[in-house]
Amino acid sequence: MNNHDLGANFIEIDFEPIGRRIDVLPGTTILDAARSAGIELSSVCGGMGSCGACRIRLMEGTLSSLTSTEKNDLSHFEVNDGIRFACQAKVINSVKIDIPPESLSTPQRLQVEGKGKNVDLDPVVYSIEVTLQPPGLSDLRSDLSRLRDKLSEMGLPQIEICHQALVSLSDELRNQNWKVSVILKNSEIIAILPSGSKIYGLAVDVGTTKLASYLVDLENGETVSFSGAMNPQISYGEDVISRISYSNDYVAGNITLQKILIDTLNNLTKEMSQGLGISIDQIVDSVIVGNTAMHHLLAGFSVHQLGTAPYVPSVSEAIEIPVQAIGLKIAPGAYIYLPPNIAGYVGADHVAMLLAVQAAQERQDAHTIVSLDIGTNTEISLYHWGRHLSCSCASGPAFEGAHINDGMRAAPGAIEKVRITNGRILLQTINGNLPIGICGSGILDVVAELFTNGIIDHRGVFLRDNANNYNGRKEFILSPASKSENGRNIVITRKDINEIQLAKGAIRAGVEVLLQEVGVTDEDIDEFIVAGAFGTYLDIESAIKIGMFPDLSREKFLQVGNAAGIGAKAMLVSKSQRRLASQISMNVEYVELTTHPGFTESYMAALAFPT
Amino acid sequence: MNNHDLGANFIEIDFEPIGRRIDVLPGTTILDAARSAGIELSSVCGGMGSCGACRIRLMEGTLSSLTSTEKNDLSHFEVNDGIRFACQAKVINSVKIDIPPESLSTPQRLQVEGKGKNVDLDPVVYSIEVTLQPPGLSDLRSDLSRLRDKLSEMGLPQIEICHQALVSLSDELRNQNWKVSVILKNSEIIAILPSGSKIYGLAVDVGTTKLASYLVDLENGETVSFSGAMNPQISYGEDVISRISYSNDYVAGNITLQKILIDTLNNLTKEMSQGLGISIDQIVDSVIVGNTAMHHLLAGFSVHQLGTAPYVPSVSEAIEIPVQAIGLKIAPGAYIYLPPNIAGYVGADHVAMLLAVQAAQERQDAHTIVSLDIGTNTEISLYHWGRHLSCSCASGPAFEGAHINDGMRAAPGAIEKVRITNGRILLQTINGNLPIGICGSGILDVVAELFTNGIIDHRGVFLRDNANNYNGRKEFILSPASKSENGRNIVITRKDINEIQLAKGAIRAGVEVLLQEVGVTDEDIDEFIVAGAFGTYLDIESAIKIGMFPDLSREKFLQVGNAAGIGAKAMLVSKSQRRLASQISMNVEYVELTTHPGFTESYMAALAFPT
Repeated sequence: MNNHDLGANFIEIDFEPIGRRIDVLPGTTILDAARSAGIELSSVCGGMGSCGACRIRLMEGTLSSLTSTEKNDLSHFEVNDGIRFACQAKVINSVKIDIPPESLSTPQRLQVEGKGKNVDLDPVVYSIEVTLQPPGLSDLRSDLSRLRDKLSEMGLPQIEICHQALVSLSDELRNQNWKVSVILKNSEIIAILPSGSKIYGLAVDVGTTKLASYLVDLENGETVSFSGAMNPQISYGEDVISRISYSNDYVAGNITLQKILIDTLNNLTKEMSQGLGISIDQIVDSVIVGNTAMHHLLAGFSVHQLGTAPYVPSVSEAIEIPVQAIGLKIAPGAYIYLPPNIAGYVGADHVAMLLAVQAAQERQDAHTIVSLDIGTNTEISLYHWGRHLSCSCASGPAFEGAHINDGMRAAPGAIEKVRITNGRILLQTINGNLPIGICGSGILDVVAELFTNGIIDHRGVFLRDNANNYNGRKEFILSPASKSENGRNIVITRKDINEIQLAKGAIRAGVEVLLQEVGVTDEDIDEFIVAGAFGTYLDIESAIKIGMFPDLSREKFLQVGNAAGIGAKAMLVSKSQRRLASQISMNVEYVELTTHPGFTESYMAALAFPT
Repeated sequence: MNNHDLGANFIEIDFEPIGRRIDVLPGTTILDAARSAGIELSSVCGGMGSCGACRIRLMEGTLSSLTSTEKNDLSHFEVNDGIRFACQAKVINSVKIDIPPESLSTPQRLQVEGKGKNVDLDPVVYSIEVTLQPPGLSDLRSDLSRLRDKLSEMGLPQIEICHQALVSLSDELRNQNWKVSVILKNSEIIAILPSGSKIYGLAVDVGTTKLASYLVDLENGETVSFSGAMNPQISYGEDVISRISYSNDYVAGNITLQKILIDTLNNLTKEMSQGLGISIDQIVDSVIVGNTAMHHLLAGFSVHQLGTAPYVPSVSEAIEIPVQAIGLKIAPGAYIYLPPNIAGYVGADHVAMLLAVQAAQERQDAHTIVSLDIGTNTEISLYHWGRHLSCSCASGPAFEGAHINDGMRAAPGAIEKVRITNGRILLQTINGNLPIGICGSGILDVVAELFTNGIIDHRGVFLRDNANNYNGRKEFILSPASKSENGRNIVITRKDINEIQLAKGAIRAGVEVLLQEVGVTDEDIDEFIVAGAFGTYLDIESAIKIGMFPDLSREKFLQVGNAAGIGAKAMLVSKSQRRLASQISMNVEYVELTTHPGFTESYMAALAFPT
């Protein structure tokens, strides 16, 4: 296939279901070809063939023979199905390749799509096609007057235009031969694009640890691209408090944190737009959600007051920022919509989650709804017959694997599920790798299993010291050195159990205080919604066994994944969802737990395991 | 001279009499070297070697050989004297260069204060003092909500806040102990300043040649500081057309021109604010006027269409630009108000002038008012009983000293007044220096005196060839070499006289066409207003003698100086003046002279001198 000037024998690869084609030289691996095509395949091991994350399926044509790595790691069924490792399979002829969604890059087990949400399309930013008569000696109106007059004729009087759109107006009109797409945000022109341009919006969930970025087609509401990354601020501190300290302690510290965050968002956006073959000028709106500290750091606001009692935010209401004010690289006249924050430690991401799962508004089928997003800070909301209370509790980083002896994030090799039956320990690791450590859902399981198997008592104290799986009364061996990736025992210590007690106690006490505030008990709860990555992977039974969640009938629990991202996307395509978000935040009664008279008692009671 | 890290052979140039030294690479032109040294040489043709404005003199060392351009255009005398064109001569060895004053773009006689204007104070931006209760555990409102609630209590509900003010809000409130000046633009907070801060506005008249910058106390309307400079864009072309060409011919050419202009404005503002001991954050509003091309270059708009028929502007209406969009360094949340343009060659500076002298609105004492601002393009307005017409005529750069054999700008040594009595020539130069050349008002005088003394006829033809003061029939010696600064005869040539005829003919024809349009004649004119620097220094008698102005009774003429600057200052402190400016621009009927049926006839008739 000599379709290049150089005359080399390029071979065409067709990547499905994305529909991207690329020509490569023979011998190129599918992984490299995908990278060249702007498709990021998972590759935890860096293309060494050891992680198996880059599985693809051959649909048509032939690839190089199976390598010994593939022969070892692929099942017979997979081989028959055409599954290959992209890093091992090399191109020899023209092929069509299917990329399963799970092989698309996510640096960790990250986002899961939450419960879907049907939103009526009513976007803030929309496009209209305009054709103008060019000027002549008998019609010397300025370009802007000409455009305005035409829009007025079309039923759009009183239209404003932002400076960035104005800068490109005259050249764009002439380059496009007086036929353009005019991009309007309410009654303001924010961009002038070639006629027929499709327009997109950017939705981002800025987590303290992870970023999830989506491109949405503003005309049909469909998510057309997704990209995730670690929050680069991690290198300045793993949690919100340490980043606030960094901001306070270093000159322009918050500007540093703002800049690296925005650089990363710009890279994600560039990747996605290149993948789709669109210009960033076609990305004409954005909604970004995050906790209050992430919100403030993104916007360039001081976070000093977030680290000092009484922890008030600079801004709680919804705001819009011109993208150029903070350097976000989408259409230069676009805005970033930042939904309202509730308090210093209950942010816009919580509002977006509530919006996505309808957990703070009247519904026929549920009148008492608890919803929570578990993290270093856990945000909890209680909706009860029109009243809406929320609070934040310091649950600590244990569920993110921090402050745990063998804790780790939810990456390949992390123990994510544990069962102990008749003294036998069953472990499940992410991707089935040899155990490296324990992630949040695994820790929760271990503690629940230790307790239900009578290995620890309700106070969290080890009861026996003579079994194989524990070492004195200080730790329990979950995976012996011989069976672990790094040749070390993977253990749960007494201190680890205490960390979990503190975390789950705080969460349960937060829920109880809110229930008390409205005068109801556990039994009155109609729905118990758990959002976020950890919330999605945790085992509800384990959470109930250790008393983190109340013992409700199981169908009341809903694990909704990255609902904050869903909420952000909903606000991108719907004005009424933005209004609803503001109503939610205005209706909420924030309950400060640290000074709440009932909190300490509930907390003390919730530390023990339920007997 | 290896005085750079790279060890390249940099060559030192010593510019005299300024005494500036700079190292450049071999092959650099003297023009580029001067630019690098921050010395603005005249360069009408943009460095093409055709205008001869960038003459310099080699004092020591050697330069590249004379180019054919120089051999054609430099006289034998000049070559012997070491005169070169800076754009043609390249550096080959260390040299000492003399820059004659007439080749410097600076200094010149700059702005004069125009006729005063009393304006009722009604500024768009104002300040109010606010004291807030700090937050506490029982009052967790965000900082913005707290401020908004307080403003609402004070009778200011529905207040918005710009991003730049929001960025500083939390720290400013705490640093100032919850007592601040809130700076409002209409209903938007644009800055938060320490309690009691005085606030100022910046008014700028961006001329093609000169910049005039004023700081105005927004609370009493007084001008507290003034600073002028040359428009630095001059080094890319002396007139509007050559700058439009530069923008079209070079990648990001208009961005280059925007940047050097704004850098200079920022320097002027910094100088003025340092002089007053205030912070630039206290400069909270600005109004900038200029012709349409200057307006577009400042705002970053394309000027391509201004250089191509039918010469329509991007924007004619008044606009406001956030200062951060173009990098103007005053309070970061402030805006720049750009008053309306009338057409591609009748800009906001003309509107500002009309506003300042009330030349386009109903007045008891004057119902037919002609007002004009003479430059390379001369803008002319006629107000007649509620109708307002305006036009622009290409009067050429003769009155700025260009295209005149011994022409120069109004700098020290320029002949600015001439009288010829009984064959005796009386000259007055700026600052009383020995004559170097002739500036606009001098040229006007010479031509008028030559005509009234019968030395030229009504066609501009020399009548005699036997007197001391002229040389054949080609030129008239105004100042002999022996009495001139540079040892050369300063002459007026037949071609110079023709240039003046073309210029004054265009101006007079423009006035006549407008009068014809409303069906009146010269005698109906109640006021004849002449604005701008040249308009202020020109001799009305001379202008009448050569037929540039109609022969009205002398008290009808008003020379109003930099009225555009006065108008800009009026708009800075008064909303109603801004509204009036927009009304003026909407009311105006623009008359395109180039296609006007009566123009050519009037023009032909106006070329001759009146007999």
